[in-house]
Amino acid sequence: MSKLQIAVALYEGMTLLDAAGPIEVLRFLPDARLELVSAATGPVRSDARTDLVATTTYDECTSPDVVVVPGGPGTGEALGGPLIGWLRQVHPTTTWTTSVCSGSLLLAHAGLLEGAPAASHFAVLDLLPQLGATPSHERVVVDEAHHVMTAAGVSSGIDMALVLAERLSDATTAQAIQLVTEYDPHPPHDSGSLAKASADVVRRAVELGRPHGAIPEFWEPPA
Amino acid sequence: MSKLQIAVALYEGMTLLDAAGPIEVLRFLPDARLELVSAATGPVRSDARTDLVATTTYDECTSPDVVVVPGGPGTGEALGGPLIGWLRQVHPTTTWTTSVCSGSLLLAHAGLLEGAPAASHFAVLDLLPQLGATPSHERVVVDEAHHVMTAAGVSSGIDMALVLAERLSDATTAQAIQLVTEYDPHPPHDSGSLAKASADVVRRAVELGRPHGAIPEFWEPPA
Repeated sequence: MSKLQIAVALYEGMTLLDAAGPIEVLRFLPDARLELVSAATGPVRSDARTDLVATTTYDECTSPDVVVVPGGPGTGEALGGPLIGWLRQVHPTTTWTTSVCSGSLLLAHAGLLEGAPAASHFAVLDLLPQLGATPSHERVVVDEAHHVMTAAGVSSGIDMALVLAERLSDATTAQAIQLVTEYDPHPPHDSGSLAKASADVVRRAVELGRPHGAIPEFWEPPA
Repeated sequence: MSKLQIAVALYEGMTLLDAAGPIEVLRFLPDARLELVSAATGPVRSDARTDLVATTTYDECTSPDVVVVPGGPGTGEALGGPLIGWLRQVHPTTTWTTSVCSGSLLLAHAGLLEGAPAASHFAVLDLLPQLGATPSHERVVVDEAHHVMTAAGVSSGIDMALVLAERLSDATTAQAIQLVTEYDPHPPHDSGSLAKASADVVRRAVELGRPHGAIPEFWEPPA
């Protein structure tokens, strides 16, 4: 029996953890093969001080069972790149097409989220309606009808990948991966969503995030 | 004023998320410069299907303010490598020397945890006493006396990095980074620590983790 093929798409300016979180979880799935796919094999620059390395190309990866699309400040440029055509080509035969963070804008731009509920990073969530999708404030949105899963910002890809791992295997396997990666979160504060962060924290997030492209220039905190 | 220098050590067989979690958090610190340091610059193989890329060498990085040491199946081999000598050399002048997962075995082997409480991945925690450290089941251990922080397995590096971010700046900044990375965890199950996982889940974790070196051969589930 051929292995389940899981393709994580890489593009210049993707956010490191958007990709690394799901890679870390999904690589433990039994009978699965993880591929990092891009226009060419070799290093692809993330928005942190490191590359990730593509193991295969869009041309070679024609029928993945699962697709994971990270977000990041490179999303805008990726809208005009080969990833979009590849998503349109492979999505009809995937079991799940998924995204983390602003990666859902790429799925939507490819026409995969027409009439679909979708999550995204809080700072780009309002862009979804003009691309045909319905913004959701959930951390992980599972849309059976479109065989699509979308996650909120950055670290939420870990939660999504655990949901995905359960769908692709079973609950015990997903829980076991959670144990191996010791995902028993205890953040020191509870400020990880826009609904929970104080106005001061939101202002500071804008100051820190904008220079890195993690918060777009157009985004303003809610009044 | 010179920037705070944060050095994340890379070595063959490190676990991807052990490094990527803290990198993602710490890169947002203002007035800080993140370096990925190894024996040589260039790609360093992680245990996932990708490299991370060292930006500087141990020889060039002589007085980092903060050191982060990931864990992973490569820990054993790293015990005999140049990382250990470098840790001994730079630790006396760091503000914080930190580790994620089995990275604490490297700190201990370098003699940095003599008489110190320390966290580690649950499957190697019992190795700490023979290296002079006292195992802790906490997710993040802050040891002021030794200016050391250690974290439990893999994903706990995110929590540790947020604690570290607060120490290096202030609570608002740490909370803002938590917001930018949307770290508002909602794992689908609650099995992320040995104390919480069922016996079935622990057995499955061993099955899945061993082939990847994430659970060492010698480790057996508690009776």
